[in-house]
Amino acid sequence: MDAISVIRTKRDRGELTPEQIDWVIDAYTRGEVADEQMSALAMAILLNGMNRAEIARWTAAMIASGERMDFSSLSHPTADKHSTGGVGDKITLPLAPLVAACGAAVPQLSGRGLGHTGGTLDKLESIPGWRALLSNEEMLHVLDTTGAVICAAGDGLAPADKKLYALRDVTGTVEAIPLIASSIMSKKIAEGTGSLVLDVKVGSGAFMKNIDDARELASTMVGLGTDHGVRTVALLTDMSTPLGLTAGNALEVRESVEVLAGGGPADVVELTVALAREMLDAAGLRDADPAKALADGSAMDVWRRMIAAQGGDPDAELPVARERHVVTAPSSGVLTRLDAYGVGVAAWRLGAGRARKEDPVQAGAGVELHAKPGDTVTAGRPLMTLHTDTPEKFDYALKALEGAWDIAPAGTAFTPGPIVLDRIS
Amino acid sequence: MDAISVIRTKRDRGELTPEQIDWVIDAYTRGEVADEQMSALAMAILLNGMNRAEIARWTAAMIASGERMDFSSLSHPTADKHSTGGVGDKITLPLAPLVAACGAAVPQLSGRGLGHTGGTLDKLESIPGWRALLSNEEMLHVLDTTGAVICAAGDGLAPADKKLYALRDVTGTVEAIPLIASSIMSKKIAEGTGSLVLDVKVGSGAFMKNIDDARELASTMVGLGTDHGVRTVALLTDMSTPLGLTAGNALEVRESVEVLAGGGPADVVELTVALAREMLDAAGLRDADPAKALADGSAMDVWRRMIAAQGGDPDAELPVARERHVVTAPSSGVLTRLDAYGVGVAAWRLGAGRARKEDPVQAGAGVELHAKPGDTVTAGRPLMTLHTDTPEKFDYALKALEGAWDIAPAGTAFTPGPIVLDRIS
Repeated sequence: MDAISVIRTKRDRGELTPEQIDWVIDAYTRGEVADEQMSALAMAILLNGMNRAEIARWTAAMIASGERMDFSSLSHPTADKHSTGGVGDKITLPLAPLVAACGAAVPQLSGRGLGHTGGTLDKLESIPGWRALLSNEEMLHVLDTTGAVICAAGDGLAPADKKLYALRDVTGTVEAIPLIASSIMSKKIAEGTGSLVLDVKVGSGAFMKNIDDARELASTMVGLGTDHGVRTVALLTDMSTPLGLTAGNALEVRESVEVLAGGGPADVVELTVALAREMLDAAGLRDADPAKALADGSAMDVWRRMIAAQGGDPDAELPVARERHVVTAPSSGVLTRLDAYGVGVAAWRLGAGRARKEDPVQAGAGVELHAKPGDTVTAGRPLMTLHTDTPEKFDYALKALEGAWDIAPAGTAFTPGPIVLDRIS
Repeated sequence: MDAISVIRTKRDRGELTPEQIDWVIDAYTRGEVADEQMSALAMAILLNGMNRAEIARWTAAMIASGERMDFSSLSHPTADKHSTGGVGDKITLPLAPLVAACGAAVPQLSGRGLGHTGGTLDKLESIPGWRALLSNEEMLHVLDTTGAVICAAGDGLAPADKKLYALRDVTGTVEAIPLIASSIMSKKIAEGTGSLVLDVKVGSGAFMKNIDDARELASTMVGLGTDHGVRTVALLTDMSTPLGLTAGNALEVRESVEVLAGGGPADVVELTVALAREMLDAAGLRDADPAKALADGSAMDVWRRMIAAQGGDPDAELPVARERHVVTAPSSGVLTRLDAYGVGVAAWRLGAGRARKEDPVQAGAGVELHAKPGDTVTAGRPLMTLHTDTPEKFDYALKALEGAWDIAPAGTAFTPGPIVLDRIS
């Protein structure tokens, strides 16, 4: 077995054998297959694809490269959720405590942001004292005592994926559906959850710009989960416009707390409840009522315990950016489009995101929206407020917002599309 | 400008701009673009192609990465030849002195063998004392005083190609026509010849297995040469069976000397004269008569002077392998097929070639043929003789020869095909 013959097989549109896949993942993890060989293989996979059997084996080999977690000691069924990432996507924050309040155990291993989409850990780190890094024992303790935990994935889970992802990031090979699906699912399966709900975003602010690609990715991941004994379902959800009214770290935590308090933007509440319903069904808790758990404060109770268990103060004041800039509507009428990608890039440039994984993020930076598609706007009145500690970035952020919205004449009939576009199980 | 955007352009079937090509070749040569990025780009080029403008710019950028040689001080027009490599392809050895004897200056920068095709330098190094490595001054001196020189290319010519070729070799990206064409032509153009004849081999023993690929490669290279002011013509020649009766180092030198002495196998003589004719025409020497220069000994005179000028003894006994194994014909009849690839791999395994570029080769090893397609063979009589210093490799070499020939019943009408299949100018 050697790297060149594996690369040639895929280059020439052949099917990789199970032995080739096991060998190349293991040899790459050990450093016997070089980065330049793996990147050539990744490009061949991106351009020539892999079939379901190849993707399943690839995923299994990445799982086998590291340790697996075991939640079988917990008294509650586990339910996990993964989002492919979007602008203003703070759903994990209200969702994890909500589902825990309904009786499931929610182990939520999360990541940091890179590029225009924020990261769940970056958002929670804006809460004074909160710690993302837990040992496996600490993680199980928080999960067992509060019902939910949101923390960083340990280095031991799917190390092959960690190495491969870093390579794909610098070689133009991120956008390969088989590699995206196996990357996400290897971590989720190694994590040991019993059920998984995938939120696959579609639209300008998402990784997948069109619904066909999103559907292929979702089907691939659902198949992988099912093949590994994880009850898996995917919702395809709209990411053409930001979720809720905020994109940023502390800004999104504040909005999430509003949702847990029974308020918050309608789209965030709708998606949170829809995903909670799916997670509870997948975990076998069909009688639970997530809308009630939001309304009666039980989800908020879990949130407060979960934040406190990881060193955070749920009552602390959240950081606020030093400077603001208000963008006003240039005309009156109906907002018919507000582009997720433009808002995401603006928030990123204001300091909410990072360009390289070693960069810090600003807790208070981001974009606060005063109108969403379908809302009436008035010329000269605020459309959005930009927040940053580095006001020299305002102009650069504003450039990302050029052409990012459309305003139609007052009286124009306009109904925003649905949030949940499709369901795949 | 950054590597990822260049990779993405080609990955997504776009056309690379001149600026992207110049930048990526220069940055790769300097080490700013990493090996894993260049190999991903090479795989995207292999699978998605490059158009003529892109290949021309890629070649120009590789030439610009190093020094260019200048033969304008010579009193004779320069003529160069390049073969894409085959089994038993010793043509450079009689050809260079033959063309020099007819009035052209022949600077022949050559390589070593890797895999089943032999290298010209490996063959000549079987002559006691002969040196492949010359300084630029020594090379010009040999060329000026003898009319021909065959030596190793200096490190200064197209260093980008040297680095990229080594990378392609380990990443399954050798077989990309745009990269093969630009690799060959960047060195030949940097070398500064005025005219160039390409011998593009087609068949089992060649890089190009079918005539369409060979024609595409030939057209691409002729276009590149012409665009750079080098009079370039290509012959497509048969490599389904070995050239001549020997594949090996000293074995091929001995056969080449027979050709220079006015004898030798008919196919080697035919191809040598055909290529000499093309080189002389391209150099503007239309009145020269290569058949006469072979017959009257003037080509042999140049050979002896050329070998001596590089430290070799043209009268020395050539090395002979320590062990022999005779393969006999299993039946009587007409040999209708003798597979070049099988013979090439057998010679390689016997020690005539190397698996890694740092390996040594055996001077005496190889395969000596006693019949060629069209010849009558007799059951139990020798078909070929294997030569090696490492007799433990006989079995391994014999494996490569399984199924490598067909013998039809005696009396079967069989005419071997032509050697020159097509001409592209």
